[in-house]
Amino acid sequence: MSADPVFDPPREIGILIFDDVEELDFVGPWEVLQMINTVARHLGEAARVRVRLISPDGGDITAVKGMRVGAHAAMADVDALDVILVPGGNGTRPLIERDDVMEWVSRIGKQARLVTSVCTGAFVIAKAGFLKGRRAATYWAAFDEFRALGLEGELVPDVRYVRDGNVVTSAGVSAGIDMSLWLVGQWYSPAFARMVARGMQYDPAPPYAADV
Amino acid sequence: MSADPVFDPPREIGILIFDDVEELDFVGPWEVLQMINTVARHLGEAARVRVRLISPDGGDITAVKGMRVGAHAAMADVDALDVILVPGGNGTRPLIERDDVMEWVSRIGKQARLVTSVCTGAFVIAKAGFLKGRRAATYWAAFDEFRALGLEGELVPDVRYVRDGNVVTSAGVSAGIDMSLWLVGQWYSPAFARMVARGMQYDPAPPYAADV
Repeated sequence: MSADPVFDPPREIGILIFDDVEELDFVGPWEVLQMINTVARHLGEAARVRVRLISPDGGDITAVKGMRVGAHAAMADVDALDVILVPGGNGTRPLIERDDVMEWVSRIGKQARLVTSVCTGAFVIAKAGFLKGRRAATYWAAFDEFRALGLEGELVPDVRYVRDGNVVTSAGVSAGIDMSLWLVGQWYSPAFARMVARGMQYDPAPPYAADV
Repeated sequence: MSADPVFDPPREIGILIFDDVEELDFVGPWEVLQMINTVARHLGEAARVRVRLISPDGGDITAVKGMRVGAHAAMADVDALDVILVPGGNGTRPLIERDDVMEWVSRIGKQARLVTSVCTGAFVIAKAGFLKGRRAATYWAAFDEFRALGLEGELVPDVRYVRDGNVVTSAGVSAGIDMSLWLVGQWYSPAFARMVARGMQYDPAPPYAADV
């Protein structure tokens, strides 16, 4: 459908969740990506994607601000994905020390069409080697820590998201919404992405935005 | 702290969750409101608010796009709140038919300093009588249904959120983020709200926003 095979529409999308993940990091993309099916249904079509929340062992996780969330699958249940999305949060620091998680992210990422992250999820995909020699975004406050950990990747400041090859990374927390919506437009069309945005009334107007 | 007692800083904030609630409707405000404590901690202060997800019976709920979420309390556990927030989603339609839920929303809302809703959460607070003679926002696609149900309230189109007395309502889904952030600025200060926004890197840049 796309001239760029990286952006051929996906079928299977998996979002990794884990203890101390930041809530909006994964729920923002979840809302956008599931809205693809809501819009398709409104158009009289079948679902276009299957989006699953995947936790390491398939059990519930407790996100960093205290929300407990169930998983649709365990890592062991998932051998292939078209798109993997790794959100951030304080939980990414212990996560990159877990051999089982890093093995899974590395293996699934290698066969995926797209490897994506939000916020400090970039730490996880960097540790798995996906940002080596690539430009990437991460949380604004995490640049020094990324480098101190010896992770490889060329961090880009002051952007919402970066695409480099088949890796797409976003800045912190709320930036995952913009990144996901951008992907929707690449997969289908800008018009379809606008329908998704309209479905979630995404016409943001941040209060107090100016330094008044 | 505020010249307007409606905006005296709250301590107890409760977000009602229920089956078929829309995910971002409640996770957006949850992220913003919990970020108050994250920022306070960064400033070396104690937590300012307690935010809880409250389900009718205290059990897990499954949101409309398939995310299962745990509750911190049941309605029966909660006799008082400073702020009640009712998110929307398809689940609001069966919710307004439930006597136990409507009794609780009505009772808690009457003693609360602020009654708030996101999206079609406005249906629930309208059914409880809080929008009678008041201006309110709701999901753009739900205006006709609101009126067809005979709910009372003067709906305002094309706004992110509306304050009328001690009731603050937002438009659909993502608008709950803007509303919550606005409340943070009213409770504390615009400068504090900007720290909260910075914590979630909330500097949105919706792709494909223009009709290009």
